[in-house]
Amino acid sequence: MSNSVVTMDKIVNLCKRRGFVFQSSEIYGGLISCYDYGPLGVELKRNVKEAWWRDTVSSRADIVGLDCSILMHPKVWEASGHLTNFSDPMVDCKLCKGRFRADQLEQARCPKKPSKRPGECEGELTEARAFNLMFKTHMGPVEDTAAAVYLRPETAQGIFVNFSNVVNTSRNKPPFGIAQIGKSFRNEITPGNFLFRTREFEQMELEYFVKPGEDDAWYEYWQQRRLQWYLDYGIDPAKLTLRAHDEDELAHYAKGCCDVEYEFPIGWQELEGIANRTDFDLKQHIEHSGKDLSFFDEQDKERYVPYVIEPSAGADRATLAFLVDAYDEDGPENDRRTVLRLHPSLAPIKVAVFPLMRKGGLPEKAQELIALLGSRVAVDYDQSGSIGRRYRRQDEAGTPLGVTVDYQTLEDETVTLRDRDTMEQERVAISELLDVVVEKTAPPPPYPKLSPGG
Amino acid sequence: MSNSVVTMDKIVNLCKRRGFVFQSSEIYGGLISCYDYGPLGVELKRNVKEAWWRDTVSSRADIVGLDCSILMHPKVWEASGHLTNFSDPMVDCKLCKGRFRADQLEQARCPKKPSKRPGECEGELTEARAFNLMFKTHMGPVEDTAAAVYLRPETAQGIFVNFSNVVNTSRNKPPFGIAQIGKSFRNEITPGNFLFRTREFEQMELEYFVKPGEDDAWYEYWQQRRLQWYLDYGIDPAKLTLRAHDEDELAHYAKGCCDVEYEFPIGWQELEGIANRTDFDLKQHIEHSGKDLSFFDEQDKERYVPYVIEPSAGADRATLAFLVDAYDEDGPENDRRTVLRLHPSLAPIKVAVFPLMRKGGLPEKAQELIALLGSRVAVDYDQSGSIGRRYRRQDEAGTPLGVTVDYQTLEDETVTLRDRDTMEQERVAISELLDVVVEKTAPPPPYPKLSPGG
Repeated sequence: MSNSVVTMDKIVNLCKRRGFVFQSSEIYGGLISCYDYGPLGVELKRNVKEAWWRDTVSSRADIVGLDCSILMHPKVWEASGHLTNFSDPMVDCKLCKGRFRADQLEQARCPKKPSKRPGECEGELTEARAFNLMFKTHMGPVEDTAAAVYLRPETAQGIFVNFSNVVNTSRNKPPFGIAQIGKSFRNEITPGNFLFRTREFEQMELEYFVKPGEDDAWYEYWQQRRLQWYLDYGIDPAKLTLRAHDEDELAHYAKGCCDVEYEFPIGWQELEGIANRTDFDLKQHIEHSGKDLSFFDEQDKERYVPYVIEPSAGADRATLAFLVDAYDEDGPENDRRTVLRLHPSLAPIKVAVFPLMRKGGLPEKAQELIALLGSRVAVDYDQSGSIGRRYRRQDEAGTPLGVTVDYQTLEDETVTLRDRDTMEQERVAISELLDVVVEKTAPPPPYPKLSPGG
Repeated sequence: MSNSVVTMDKIVNLCKRRGFVFQSSEIYGGLISCYDYGPLGVELKRNVKEAWWRDTVSSRADIVGLDCSILMHPKVWEASGHLTNFSDPMVDCKLCKGRFRADQLEQARCPKKPSKRPGECEGELTEARAFNLMFKTHMGPVEDTAAAVYLRPETAQGIFVNFSNVVNTSRNKPPFGIAQIGKSFRNEITPGNFLFRTREFEQMELEYFVKPGEDDAWYEYWQQRRLQWYLDYGIDPAKLTLRAHDEDELAHYAKGCCDVEYEFPIGWQELEGIANRTDFDLKQHIEHSGKDLSFFDEQDKERYVPYVIEPSAGADRATLAFLVDAYDEDGPENDRRTVLRLHPSLAPIKVAVFPLMRKGGLPEKAQELIALLGSRVAVDYDQSGSIGRRYRRQDEAGTPLGVTVDYQTLEDETVTLRDRDTMEQERVAISELLDVVVEKTAPPPPYPKLSPGG
């Protein structure tokens, strides 16, 4: 199956046409860089997040979950360095009041005279100043500095500040992890490329705490494990790669960082970063809070501040990658088919049920099957239009299975089961249908390797 | 089982001690009215939300989901009335700069002289002014009025502005619903009572669109259906009630409103509101956006703006209610047991596996069962301390089932299955264990009545 046919325009159009993703506040002209997930999109994204949670938390004894508030104490961002360092350098034009990234002046245009670059018109540019990327708001009724709070720019810090709470209540000890899925906000100067870079986005972050000295092995482990996650859920291996950061790309506290990159129609882009953040974050919070966040190993009678390996993925980026990778067109020129070859466990709808005709007791029989299948998997029902058109509608939604109820069904209690990818049909007994559908749409087996050793 | 023993203090303590809920940013002194869900809490809340989504969306053909961005176009809040009306009346003290709710001056205290009420010290109070409860922030690099955006104070408006998008892509027609789960933010003057009233909170909202004239029957339907949801998941019927709003409590656009109330230790409080909002919201957006959000019924050749019935629940409040309602203490005075009698499908952990001893092959056998059970349900493993202590730890976490592996297990492939509520034990064959556990922890059957008629 060739995938050279996909473009971002086709994805955006399909998303809008079929209800995967809409522009936020569209009836008011839209809000730049914000998107709403429609009926199909919300189920796809839920399945992506569920796949991550299942593989990262539910199936492992060494990782627990957490769900922190988006608003956090401002001192968290002092300690993490975000208040001081999480900024882009900006210059202002004193004449037109335009504001531009100092490191991207070459590509910028004067808003008043778009044929000119900033500074080439009569306007004088200010010195570059740091513009913080955190969204700021005020909590409590009085709008003064004391009450200024920020929308978190990452979920990770919620995990670090709760390190002791989790250790004390869950009785875990390194190596162990704390995982979180949630919204973060960054006031990006140049968001863009649909869901790829947005100001409001959802993260899936894991902080995996290990004893210093064991960090290199675990850093390697999580790179392989996270790469495999995308492959397990169907991403084309030819479009996925691990790219280690060069020395000069590394944050000053990171011992190593590696990106999982996917080849989008806009080029190779980061899906997820896996970093060895050492003990930087915990030590910052120890220093700023005055609280002891070290770990005492009862067995070895040893106290240490754990190192942390952080696989940090974007739920929206992952969803976009799964959509792009699944997009395909096939069939002859005069009968082209658009199909989303999503992994069945990610598909918004697992099985659609069609009565061949809208009469003769077929719709009633189909509704029986809806009740049967709906107890275990997401189902859809469609009785309008030709059976061929109905198949095509489900192909575009990524529905892996179609069940057709015909007159033979009423005689021998069998139905036609159609496969989205091969378009092949087989006759299945209704008594076996639920088991067959559950099996064909099940998630891949959990990653077998639970540690660098075994 | 008596539940007179529960107090909010006991709930807060249990939540902190066992990792259900922590104060946000606790190591920095905490952030008022913000909370983090710990390892047990995140699973409980996920199960509550999943129960709502399953019953509201997945199991019904007439309701689809949506997931909108938190940041929306400011005009949305102009149209909805939130910019103008979503406010509390506040007065300031000109002397001490304290700010107080004008309608709660009786209960307020001067911050400088706590023995006096505002205005009774020398300070003069300003006239009452409206203080808007929306959190305001700025999007894009320039901090001016044009870029002011708000954190949504409710998820409902995201549904209204997407009404046509959903109708056009999902081919639903009234009566049908759009459901959403997500964070909302209100800068409450007086948050409090733990998870009950917080400035950041999560909503579970359904907007159910019906033909005008059919609204009364659906309004009645959704009251009964939402009340039953809490009962199905185990809430004590004696502590749950429907309270219709008096005429003078009704918002001007509401034809009717009814609260599902629960008797918390702090008294009867609203869990959820069910309102007949008529066509107010869609009409407001039609007027402000200039877009046609009416519905054309192809069959009856009739165009109308649907009425909407809105059941609006709080995910945090529901979680708190399930915790409070589940809390119990039993046993004799000198051997008191704390137990959370959560509905098994809501429990963070479904089954805990204990090797009776840490030797003789029992831990290895227990790990086999973890692998077996973990494929379908959330499991925990505990090998430390006496078996009695281990049972008690799981009782406090609400785990409905305990499996003990003993020497007999190695001989005849059976285990002891212990019930949290009755504390009774039975011998179960390992070959049947998974089925037994899945059945005992399954969600209640879906609500059978899908419409006012049948």
